[in-house]
Amino acid sequence: MNLQNDLLLRTARGEKVERPPVWLMRQAGRILPQYRALRGKLSGFKELVETPHLAAEVTIQPVDELGVDAAIIFSDILVIPEAMGLTYEMVEKKGPWFPKTIESLSDVEKLGSGENVLGELQYVFDALSVTKKELNGRVPLIGFAGAPWTIFSYMLEGSGSKTFSKARKFLYQNPTAAHLLLDKITDTTIAYLKQKVRSGANMVQVFDSWAGILPPYQYSEFAIPYIKKIVDSIEDVPVIVFSKGAWFAMDELSKLDCQVLGVDWNTKVSDLRGKLNVQQVLQGNLDPCMLYSSEENVREATLKMLNDFGGKHIANLGHGVYPDTPLDSVKTFVNTVKSYSY
Amino acid sequence: MNLQNDLLLRTARGEKVERPPVWLMRQAGRILPQYRALRGKLSGFKELVETPHLAAEVTIQPVDELGVDAAIIFSDILVIPEAMGLTYEMVEKKGPWFPKTIESLSDVEKLGSGENVLGELQYVFDALSVTKKELNGRVPLIGFAGAPWTIFSYMLEGSGSKTFSKARKFLYQNPTAAHLLLDKITDTTIAYLKQKVRSGANMVQVFDSWAGILPPYQYSEFAIPYIKKIVDSIEDVPVIVFSKGAWFAMDELSKLDCQVLGVDWNTKVSDLRGKLNVQQVLQGNLDPCMLYSSEENVREATLKMLNDFGGKHIANLGHGVYPDTPLDSVKTFVNTVKSYSY
Repeated sequence: MNLQNDLLLRTARGEKVERPPVWLMRQAGRILPQYRALRGKLSGFKELVETPHLAAEVTIQPVDELGVDAAIIFSDILVIPEAMGLTYEMVEKKGPWFPKTIESLSDVEKLGSGENVLGELQYVFDALSVTKKELNGRVPLIGFAGAPWTIFSYMLEGSGSKTFSKARKFLYQNPTAAHLLLDKITDTTIAYLKQKVRSGANMVQVFDSWAGILPPYQYSEFAIPYIKKIVDSIEDVPVIVFSKGAWFAMDELSKLDCQVLGVDWNTKVSDLRGKLNVQQVLQGNLDPCMLYSSEENVREATLKMLNDFGGKHIANLGHGVYPDTPLDSVKTFVNTVKSYSY
Repeated sequence: MNLQNDLLLRTARGEKVERPPVWLMRQAGRILPQYRALRGKLSGFKELVETPHLAAEVTIQPVDELGVDAAIIFSDILVIPEAMGLTYEMVEKKGPWFPKTIESLSDVEKLGSGENVLGELQYVFDALSVTKKELNGRVPLIGFAGAPWTIFSYMLEGSGSKTFSKARKFLYQNPTAAHLLLDKITDTTIAYLKQKVRSGANMVQVFDSWAGILPPYQYSEFAIPYIKKIVDSIEDVPVIVFSKGAWFAMDELSKLDCQVLGVDWNTKVSDLRGKLNVQQVLQGNLDPCMLYSSEENVREATLKMLNDFGGKHIANLGHGVYPDTPLDSVKTFVNTVKSYSY
């Protein structure tokens, strides 16, 4: 099916475009009254993730309500460890929790991986197919996965953490098991993303949310090679890599064969385009907290961001939008980008 | 009283020294069996902080047990908001919690500040005096405070946070009140650190633990000027500024009139001494998780760090030592530095 709005894809391919495309990480979620209404009727977050027509419904809500240039499939990065054999629960106001975590090489060896576990993820592919059909070509659909290091962290910690010292300890104490686990996550992620593309994703994003907690030498050893393997395996659609906090690895990230790099709000675009000479299209990076400011400030900051990037740019926040962000601010952000022209 | 070991002070003053001095952030704490034994007998963390002879005892424990080149007074950065009028509780395994937080300008206006509130902190100054006497000149004593932005964050959030979006929202929505609060924290911190120096501190460290969550333009507006005011007010002893995660502000930090800059484990010393041309003495930056590794790896990584810094260096971790770090590893770290020579 032809897309009626392919601005995101043209931008990702490096074409000259009339204005930057815009979408928001976590746009399908609590910022929308429609989402909160639907969510209130359900038993929990996972019911939403695992029920294709509901996941499709919330995926499309921000396209209707905000007029963004892309939909991103409503799902969770933790479906991957679950498919591999570690189930998780989503604890209200606390976040994910794994009753069983990885503690040894034999724990790693027991996990399933790769195409073998795709059957466990059929609900995600179904959600993509339903979304694709219901979107009816209005905008591209983005699929996503966590980067192996981030997934690894959850599998070792069992939840979020202030220091991630359990996951980081494992890298030092058990590097062989760590690499085996990262390999298995990577193989699963590649099979998963390929199947997402087959199910209709026009683009994929790899989120390395916990990139910023590794020292540079470990990020080079335990993160970059696995991201590279994923990037090199996805051939048919553009890939966005977003390594949050990995400013120290920008040089290596800029050499990846992905079309787009995500930029967090700590990073100055002038540094990326300047001394680091990053060539990829960049995505980001308005501070999500800026959306708590006045309409005038949001507009001004958005325009400043657009001018700073000045092209080869997908407008977004520098992180997922926070759940209590005023909807009007989000609309001001989106509309400011949409009225901009190069 | 003359110090028997003034290596830390000579290094901080930029003198040529025989080897780097070594201490660890959080060296007085759960890594030591002596600490755990004493702590087990007490009602809680705050009893230890608020009882001068006990605070002195745990301050000196790592000097005895590890042979480090400095003692750092056992205390907490949150004694400052408490003295200003916001009491906190230390919840076991969860961290600090403030029953009442700052929500408005009038909340800020009600807070005490500066020399007026020093009376509330007498127990800290007493702890320094007792420590000083009991240390008997063996090593220098370091005093510390949180940087204003970090203290501000706790006063707004009421606890740690994944996103600090409440504190960050306040900067955008209420910049006037934010600056007033930062001013009051700064005035209090200056009075506090000066009194610590009068009570025997030979050096002070300012910890900006949450530096890394601000965008660069906000760090320049809401953090750097207040740190600068503190640094410029402390005249008699060397000052260490440790802005964790503020790699994007290194250029501004390098222009501060402080003797030492702390370096986290994400940062490559070659970047600091190279393109950023940082002139201050640097403190850091072994990954605290490296201490979970084998003795051989710890020794090797410590030596690599010492070689990378190559002088004008205070050996330390890139963050506080984690409570479950094996004591033998800590000793290997300390002893490797102590057997090193330039």
